[in-house]
Amino acid sequence: MAKMLYEGKAKKVFETENPNEVIIYYKDDATAMNGLKKGTIADKGIMNNTITSFFFDLLAKHGIPHHQIKKLNDREALCKKVSIIPMEVVTRNIAAGSLAKKMGVEEGYVMKRPIVEFYYKNDDLGDPMINADYAEAFGLATDAQVAEIKACALKINEILKAFLAERKVRLIDFKMEFGVDADGKVILADEITPDTSRLWDWDTNEKLDKDRFRRDMGSVEEAYQEIIKRLTGK
Amino acid sequence: MAKMLYEGKAKKVFETENPNEVIIYYKDDATAMNGLKKGTIADKGIMNNTITSFFFDLLAKHGIPHHQIKKLNDREALCKKVSIIPMEVVTRNIAAGSLAKKMGVEEGYVMKRPIVEFYYKNDDLGDPMINADYAEAFGLATDAQVAEIKACALKINEILKAFLAERKVRLIDFKMEFGVDADGKVILADEITPDTSRLWDWDTNEKLDKDRFRRDMGSVEEAYQEIIKRLTGK
Repeated sequence: MAKMLYEGKAKKVFETENPNEVIIYYKDDATAMNGLKKGTIADKGIMNNTITSFFFDLLAKHGIPHHQIKKLNDREALCKKVSIIPMEVVTRNIAAGSLAKKMGVEEGYVMKRPIVEFYYKNDDLGDPMINADYAEAFGLATDAQVAEIKACALKINEILKAFLAERKVRLIDFKMEFGVDADGKVILADEITPDTSRLWDWDTNEKLDKDRFRRDMGSVEEAYQEIIKRLTGK
Repeated sequence: MAKMLYEGKAKKVFETENPNEVIIYYKDDATAMNGLKKGTIADKGIMNNTITSFFFDLLAKHGIPHHQIKKLNDREALCKKVSIIPMEVVTRNIAAGSLAKKMGVEEGYVMKRPIVEFYYKNDDLGDPMINADYAEAFGLATDAQVAEIKACALKINEILKAFLAERKVRLIDFKMEFGVDADGKVILADEITPDTSRLWDWDTNEKLDKDRFRRDMGSVEEAYQEIIKRLTGK
């Protein structure tokens, strides 16, 4: 059996015979509040593998470099091995969740422009908010890498926002991680799923994402399934 | 008696006969932990008026536009009336206080480059950390204003850091506020004092700033007095 390199909250990473490639396995485990709330969402791993693969294919068509080589089966994807830059990159179009609370605005507040936020990816420290300057200051990434990441995040936001709008889904916000590949190139990594984004129905603002789990709203699996239906028509 | 326009934690602002000018009065009141800890530091108002005037004169010589017209007396300064941009601008050279805790490094960690942070100036919300993108997104300032403020903050940091180093004081970090004057120009406002900065003795790392009050270290007045002595030689 392949050696596991890393186990995260929602995925496992296994080595392959190729040192530059890994297999990512999507679990059904769900956590919230930095791991305080735990549970499972039935078939989430299968759905998130499908959704990430769909988004990555879409982004590749628009020239965005990413780590995924191909979807292998229901729960597994073959990916380039990257060195993850320890910064969570959150792009937001509409204020929701922690941002709405922090700024004293109603959830759903439409910002005058998208914002890109950076968080230091460190569970022990609670993934604190940082900014682009911290990267070079604390040796997390170079200024040039962060500038590239920010430009890429805004471009990805425009691609996904437009695509989802056509499918009657409003892209509220989403989290990305980037990594450095064997050639030293910064590429999109991790996943893009309802676990890592906020997706609202265009007409009703119904939540079709992990907030249904975080806030005990029910119909969690159905929401993920609805996203697949909107994306693929199936 | 002149009408008071605003009372902050450490200063009062009074109107003058000129609608474009105000008088700023420096109080001895000291607060910490977003107002939870309260006290007074004897003659702080007098010392901070002296220190701010000294720094503003120094910065003006280096071409930095600021709001102060002249020091009037012990506790008062005549200033241009500005519309304060509701963002606290914190520039840091060395990690201390909340930053060291947040990033899991020792206080005194020397960052590879200075960082500039922005906080939303809003007591009710606890002055949350934001970033440059929030300014335009939430209507706090324009992207152009924020870019100007950031460049100015870094320039001011270099001027003060070099000046203080010659006087055996290490500039750890400092907070600034900027305002828009009657001509629509963004200028430095508020104060630069041991209330709003961290200043350590170059050789011993002894704290010569408000952390002595925040952390009940004693000899608070003496620390402020020592800063005046280092700055002015008196």
